[in-house]
Amino acid sequence: MRFTSESRLDDHVLEREFTLGEIPGVLWTAGSASAPAPLVLLGHPGGLRRMYPRLLARASHLVADGFAATTIELPGGGDRPRFAAVEEARAELHRALAAGEPVDDGIVDRLVLPLVDEAVPEWRACLDALLALPEIDGPVGYAGGVIAIGVRMAAVEPRIAAALLFAGSYVPRAVLDEARRVAIPLHVLLQWDDEGNDRQMALQLFDAFGSQEKTLHANMGGHTGVPSFEGEAANRFFARHLR
Amino acid sequence: MRFTSESRLDDHVLEREFTLGEIPGVLWTAGSASAPAPLVLLGHPGGLRRMYPRLLARASHLVADGFAATTIELPGGGDRPRFAAVEEARAELHRALAAGEPVDDGIVDRLVLPLVDEAVPEWRACLDALLALPEIDGPVGYAGGVIAIGVRMAAVEPRIAAALLFAGSYVPRAVLDEARRVAIPLHVLLQWDDEGNDRQMALQLFDAFGSQEKTLHANMGGHTGVPSFEGEAANRFFARHLR
Repeated sequence: MRFTSESRLDDHVLEREFTLGEIPGVLWTAGSASAPAPLVLLGHPGGLRRMYPRLLARASHLVADGFAATTIELPGGGDRPRFAAVEEARAELHRALAAGEPVDDGIVDRLVLPLVDEAVPEWRACLDALLALPEIDGPVGYAGGVIAIGVRMAAVEPRIAAALLFAGSYVPRAVLDEARRVAIPLHVLLQWDDEGNDRQMALQLFDAFGSQEKTLHANMGGHTGVPSFEGEAANRFFARHLR
Repeated sequence: MRFTSESRLDDHVLEREFTLGEIPGVLWTAGSASAPAPLVLLGHPGGLRRMYPRLLARASHLVADGFAATTIELPGGGDRPRFAAVEEARAELHRALAAGEPVDDGIVDRLVLPLVDEAVPEWRACLDALLALPEIDGPVGYAGGVIAIGVRMAAVEPRIAAALLFAGSYVPRAVLDEARRVAIPLHVLLQWDDEGNDRQMALQLFDAFGSQEKTLHANMGGHTGVPSFEGEAANRFFARHLR
């Protein structure tokens, strides 16, 4: 891991860009020296530059509440080499949706599973590198998008102690099976009136999780309209489980 | 309204029992003089004495966060005169459940609707009396049980500015129709693994509410196992809307 830039945002947050091999990432920590902070991994759908404003807002809020936060670019996202198999599956998906055809399981599997297989080991390598820094401490949280990556991380990475996930559709059956093996506390967000999301499938995914502590927060406001009070609820969830 | 007893609980909470005509009730306010506090009405399934420990816990928590809280006995509950029609319908319901028979809409209507028709005017009279006290201020919240009473209060009582409801089953169709007319912010709790509750019906009720701001919090823990962090979430919901 190599830090490539460092900037202080408003005195409270230190933002450092890094590369881990070929993978670009960002680490946000408290601007002033303080005790090692528990880390939250911020997932996103790929395209770090496009997602930056939203990720920065989440990270600043987490740092203000005593956490560190980090994110990395997804395989095939941003300036990383294209992921041909996934792009073909995405084109197939868009063709099916545009034609009003049912989306078969095969397309969903080809779209999601190769990405999960690549992304999860990258996240775990990122975790190895960041937990070696003196300003970062365990336990670790995972928050955010690509639901299948969050599910796999929650199922297989023992350093993840709590996860905040967005209940999404187009979840491969294999991921539903993995969800049953998840045992850590979960905080699941669902936009109730998101027309691009299949609500029944999202509820089925929530039901599948094996965790004894799992909470679903369903809100109105459409796909991108998660109410601002959910940011505070998310931080309280992580405070309960990472401190 | 006549106050019949007054006791100071741990210096922070003043508990006063009252009667409003034949209806017994309890009012909890701050123990020391302070600015008028917004009021939260605590609904419950009837049997004030049996419910007292849980109601006191909710009320103390609300008073600690700057609210006043009150509750009244339901028609037919506790020492109030029996409500013959409702008790017949309840016996029918228990017979049907014990025999494994489907519960028909008629039983549910006869169980719930007469109670709502009696209880809602009583709550509104209680509101008239309490809002005349100098230590109580509007706007008002409704929190808690008998879902059909909460829905009717949210739909018809303009002084109710926000409501916390438990998504329950055995909701008459007429109540689903009333839910569509509710426009105030709602915070809805659902115990996901409550075997005595029909989850699909609870989700259908949440879906029916007309409110632009409505949030569903679903948790594990069985019928009575609402996690303690939901108490804090409830107070934050009322703080957003009653202050």
